[in-house]
Amino acid sequence: MTGSAYKTLDNESIVSCLAKTDNVTDVLGNRSDQWTVAEIGDGNVNLVFRIHSEQGSIIVKQALPYVRARGEDWPLALTRAKFEREALIRAEERAPGMTPVLIHGDDDLALTVMEDLTPHIILRKGLVRGRLYPKVAQDLGRYLARTLFRGSDYFLDPARKRADLAFFAGNHELCAVTEARVFTEPYFDAPLNRWNTPHLDEAVARIRADDEYKAAIQHMMTLFMTNAESLLHGDLHSGSVMVTADDTRVIDPEFAFYGPMSFDVGALLGNYLIAYMAQPGQADSEDKRRDYSEWILSTIADTWSFFAAEFRHLWTTERNGALFQKRIFTETESSTEFALGRLLRRIFDESLGFAAAKMTRRIIGAAHVEDLESIENRGLRAQCEKHVLMLARELLLSRTDFSTINDVLGAARDIRDREPAI
Amino acid sequence: MTGSAYKTLDNESIVSCLAKTDNVTDVLGNRSDQWTVAEIGDGNVNLVFRIHSEQGSIIVKQALPYVRARGEDWPLALTRAKFEREALIRAEERAPGMTPVLIHGDDDLALTVMEDLTPHIILRKGLVRGRLYPKVAQDLGRYLARTLFRGSDYFLDPARKRADLAFFAGNHELCAVTEARVFTEPYFDAPLNRWNTPHLDEAVARIRADDEYKAAIQHMMTLFMTNAESLLHGDLHSGSVMVTADDTRVIDPEFAFYGPMSFDVGALLGNYLIAYMAQPGQADSEDKRRDYSEWILSTIADTWSFFAAEFRHLWTTERNGALFQKRIFTETESSTEFALGRLLRRIFDESLGFAAAKMTRRIIGAAHVEDLESIENRGLRAQCEKHVLMLARELLLSRTDFSTINDVLGAARDIRDREPAI
Repeated sequence: MTGSAYKTLDNESIVSCLAKTDNVTDVLGNRSDQWTVAEIGDGNVNLVFRIHSEQGSIIVKQALPYVRARGEDWPLALTRAKFEREALIRAEERAPGMTPVLIHGDDDLALTVMEDLTPHIILRKGLVRGRLYPKVAQDLGRYLARTLFRGSDYFLDPARKRADLAFFAGNHELCAVTEARVFTEPYFDAPLNRWNTPHLDEAVARIRADDEYKAAIQHMMTLFMTNAESLLHGDLHSGSVMVTADDTRVIDPEFAFYGPMSFDVGALLGNYLIAYMAQPGQADSEDKRRDYSEWILSTIADTWSFFAAEFRHLWTTERNGALFQKRIFTETESSTEFALGRLLRRIFDESLGFAAAKMTRRIIGAAHVEDLESIENRGLRAQCEKHVLMLARELLLSRTDFSTINDVLGAARDIRDREPAI
Repeated sequence: MTGSAYKTLDNESIVSCLAKTDNVTDVLGNRSDQWTVAEIGDGNVNLVFRIHSEQGSIIVKQALPYVRARGEDWPLALTRAKFEREALIRAEERAPGMTPVLIHGDDDLALTVMEDLTPHIILRKGLVRGRLYPKVAQDLGRYLARTLFRGSDYFLDPARKRADLAFFAGNHELCAVTEARVFTEPYFDAPLNRWNTPHLDEAVARIRADDEYKAAIQHMMTLFMTNAESLLHGDLHSGSVMVTADDTRVIDPEFAFYGPMSFDVGALLGNYLIAYMAQPGQADSEDKRRDYSEWILSTIADTWSFFAAEFRHLWTTERNGALFQKRIFTETESSTEFALGRLLRRIFDESLGFAAAKMTRRIIGAAHVEDLESIENRGLRAQCEKHVLMLARELLLSRTDFSTINDVLGAARDIRDREPAI
């Protein structure tokens, strides 16, 4: 599966590999013998190196030809590095300033060199620590609207969109990961599933036996596989966002493909809701996390508001694609207002369904999240996890009953105030 | 735009071009000096030759690099010959025996050699002449179910489907033709539009001023452009079907691409409904076409019934793709019955919307149909056309209100019995 020029890099070979690359030496200088390298990856499918010199620092991400945590028997296409890089290029074009600056790429080595974001931390870690990010709702709401609108047939030339669709269809191995891990494996006895046992054994058994729940998840998977609406990030959870108090960047779009806009919106929403439900597990005697919990909910509300407002703005000012062309409508904005409203409503409904799928799989599937895993008391953690599952069920099965994002947040509050019923 | 090896063939060069091709001489024999050639094309984007010998006959279709009826200033990709051929291969694989047998193909010459279907005639011509085809409903209903189910994620391996999606995304010029001719141009003052003037002037003006109608058409176009649900024929009107009393073949899939299943179903439905509304224009003192009109309606009902029954059968017996996998459901067929019902209902609703789009564009857009054009009395023709437009409006704007296909047929009868109200 690996090209002949591919080799896994280490702290030494990476220096010789990059020492003559102009874009890299522009940042680090030419004294490569004085560069310092550290492998800092905590994911399980890539190596991530930080290289720094007196002059600057860079991040180098190298795709591994297999899933790191599970050894070489689980191959994964190296081409994902290329798709990630192309997705970063499009994200920068469509939502400028919201991704790390791209410095260099090498398809043979499946390697991407990027700006070292500092002092940014992963948003998920910030949410676990109870940090406030006053700009993150505005930044991510607008990022979502800009990337999703400008990657769609409302904006793009159809020939360009179809060519890009064909290109990203090549990233099918990463789509298959989502199809398996998110939508399929949690719902049968797949070997990689794990959960907080024995506390959740009964809850897991109930979901596994619930054909209505599983059919609704399959409905969301159908949208994931067939609705090629826009170019997505494809994995937009709180671990794919890096933040400071006044800067927000979206990283790691290696799952990029043309799919439903609501999948990105729902991924972020679902991960915020996990963070909210996990707060009682992060509380201590000094900080009950009550205000912080409310900050998370207001951040969700604001994210949706900024998303919808920016999407509406782009719909009005940049609708230059093949769909809903202005020349066919007599009073353009009043007559297409209904269509825009219906589109935003559909994105909203579907986002709740995708949020539910993401929330469920983080509790009963293969890949878990720090928000919950970091809660040491397993009983307390189980209570948080059950709250997540209860909300996921309500979002999944009653998603069309929620009128506004505030109704969703109200449901989250109500559930967290109750004893877990499962 | 044309490859260096491309040249337009004529009655002589086509013989020398094919005289050494084994698959051709297997049919026609080696005495190519005795082959007889006739150019029989009546379309406007291809040359079609029939070559016959004492031994047999073949059809040769060559794509022109421009739209024939409008000269060389309107280029059209020659690659469509390749996409048509690949679509024929998949159709034969998925619904055996329903397409002409493929004999030979040449990408450089944009040329496809096929079985000469005889004594078949084009279904549209049969409908104009009032001929009965007792098998056509069953044949096309099953063809639709088999091609659409087996080209979808309910059946295909996801990697194969994404590779095929990428391949057919290359057929974007043909998709652009549909996007322009069907969904866009009829709704503004585009130069190629024409209609039965002055009889329809007012009706056209009303549609053009009707933002609700146009927004609904744009909603259908959104599905066409974004819902990559299955490999479609892409142009399944009654001119793309050849029939005898006991054989049915689907030809000309050069518009093939991954789109919504309902687009093929709706194209056929809309063209049958045009044929129904045109019958009073085909009637004479000896044959009022009353029984034949009812035969058309019963054929529509049967087509849907055979489609739904076969789709249900395949859902139960061949659901081997990534979606709704049997291993995740406990009581598979009862628990996925609801999902299947919802899917068929969505295909039904959307088919009515696509039928309406197809019906409208055949009256007020660039490309018209023989069903109506053959009615010499322009006033009588206008009455038929207005009935088509009235039904199209009802299907488009109230499509979710129809419970069954029989309700649709009832609406068609009611409208045809009335004086045109527009």
